[in-house]
Amino acid sequence: MSGTLYGLGLGPGDPELLTLKAHRLISQAKVIAYPAPDSGESFARSIVAGYIPEGVREIPIVIPMRSERFPAQEVYDAAAEDIASVLETGQDVIVLCEGDPFFYGSFMYLFSRLADRFPTEVVPGVSSLGAVTAAAGLPLIARDEVLTVLPATLPAPELEAQVRKSNAVAIMKLGRQFAKVRSLLEGLGLADRAVFVSHASLPEQMACPLAEAPETAPYFSMVVVPGRDAHV
Amino acid sequence: MSGTLYGLGLGPGDPELLTLKAHRLISQAKVIAYPAPDSGESFARSIVAGYIPEGVREIPIVIPMRSERFPAQEVYDAAAEDIASVLETGQDVIVLCEGDPFFYGSFMYLFSRLADRFPTEVVPGVSSLGAVTAAAGLPLIARDEVLTVLPATLPAPELEAQVRKSNAVAIMKLGRQFAKVRSLLEGLGLADRAVFVSHASLPEQMACPLAEAPETAPYFSMVVVPGRDAHV
Ligand SMILES: C[S@@+](CC[C@H](N)C(=O)[O-])C[C@H]1O[C@@H](n2cnc3c(N)ncnc32)[C@H](O)[C@@H]1O
Ligand SMILES: C[S@@+](CC[C@H](N)C(=O)[O-])C[C@H]1O[C@@H](n2cnc3c(N)ncnc32)[C@H](O)[C@@H]1O
Repeated sequence: MSGTLYGLGLGPGDPELLTLKAHRLISQAKVIAYPAPDSGESFARSIVAGYIPEGVREIPIVIPMRSERFPAQEVYDAAAEDIASVLETGQDVIVLCEGDPFFYGSFMYLFSRLADRFPTEVVPGVSSLGAVTAAAGLPLIARDEVLTVLPATLPAPELEAQVRKSNAVAIMKLGRQFAKVRSLLEGLGLADRAVFVSHASLPEQMACPLAEAPETAPYFSMVVVPGRDAHV
Repeated sequence: MSGTLYGLGLGPGDPELLTLKAHRLISQAKVIAYPAPDSGESFARSIVAGYIPEGVREIPIVIPMRSERFPAQEVYDAAAEDIASVLETGQDVIVLCEGDPFFYGSFMYLFSRLADRFPTEVVPGVSSLGAVTAAAGLPLIARDEVLTVLPATLPAPELEAQVRKSNAVAIMKLGRQFAKVRSLLEGLGLADRAVFVSHASLPEQMACPLAEAPETAPYFSMVVVPGRDAHV
């Protein structure tokens, strides 16, 4: 009997936004795995640091910071083999995932390598989208409105076409793309409706109209244009 | 000093998918409010029935079942006044919301009436989108992919145009619109990639390829077409 692979959504950062289920599974964990930078702390691990029991075996999946935009497949090939060797002994492995695992989450790279070989369970989590709109006090979509979720990494003309055909928009992965996103939304006359939020649910949380946002955007930030019906 | 209005996301149905924060706030509640049908149980209340302390004052917001698609504004006008009269006494009021409050949630109707008059806090919850993709074992979006969230109530040509422009799609509020959605996705050659999920995270949960879905779709169901990058 092999162990079960859990993809555990941890929510956007506030440890109190963990689900009761994620909290229970971590409290009983024997082996956890999580993405980690090659220097510094793992954000996913930091969310639940206060809940990890003593003596747990930890498997950090070290993602080297490089010029490529997506993590090297070899890193996940190797991590999947490490995790598989634990699952084969009958031990469960809990993979920690910021936000919701299947919403732009790196757990997908392990899921695609392991879910057909081992029993797998995904525990959904509060996504950054919910945390960002809550932080900003910003009703997102209502009634018949359409929401489009966009990675800021898309070329400006494609972003613009997507924004034009939607009632509400969330633009993620800002970082170095922020200036492009900002001038695009200004050009569309949306600067006064759009809201910028960084570090939602964390102590350093910030929310403001896009027009008042700082010059640069950290990795954990998003721009949201809410639907108009959401205010009635 | 007036009380605080809380919009509390409860997640998609499984009581264990409540956040620790929502659980804490309900455990300490003195007054709760929730949408309820004119006969039968409130779904939001049923999620947390096991956590509501004795002696809590309950304010059901009764939404009459009618032919109009959106609840009458008078119902929310009256509910907002009931809640305001409690907040004015200094007592907090906790409004129970299925899923995430700002993601097509009816809490928005109270937020728009009360948030400028009283301190208001929104607690994000696991949305049905996360629960549906977890139930189906369906990575949703990765890398540079675009996700569009669509209400099935839109006219077919608009739905089709939106589906064509997106990498991944979630179609909500199926109910009587299900036949239209199904034939539209079949026409676009997406029937084998699309997945149908009903009652995600609940005991009666069902997930299957769209081609194998039942004739009729309940209110709590969704069709999802995942992005192609989410499988690498
Ligand atoms: C790789 S995606 C991961 C999303 C995550 N799986 C989720 O469900 O929210 C990273 C992006 O999510 C957004 N994000 C994540 N956490 C955030 C937070 N606490 N505040 C603002 N944005 C956040 C940012 O746009 C960031 O670039
Ligand atoms: C008025 S919206 C409310 C959405 C909710 N606020 C959320 O964050 O998920 C109702 C729609 O959500 C979807 N839904 C809600 N709960 C669901 C569940 N447990 N399983 C499948 N779909 C669900 C269905 O498409 C339903 O028609």
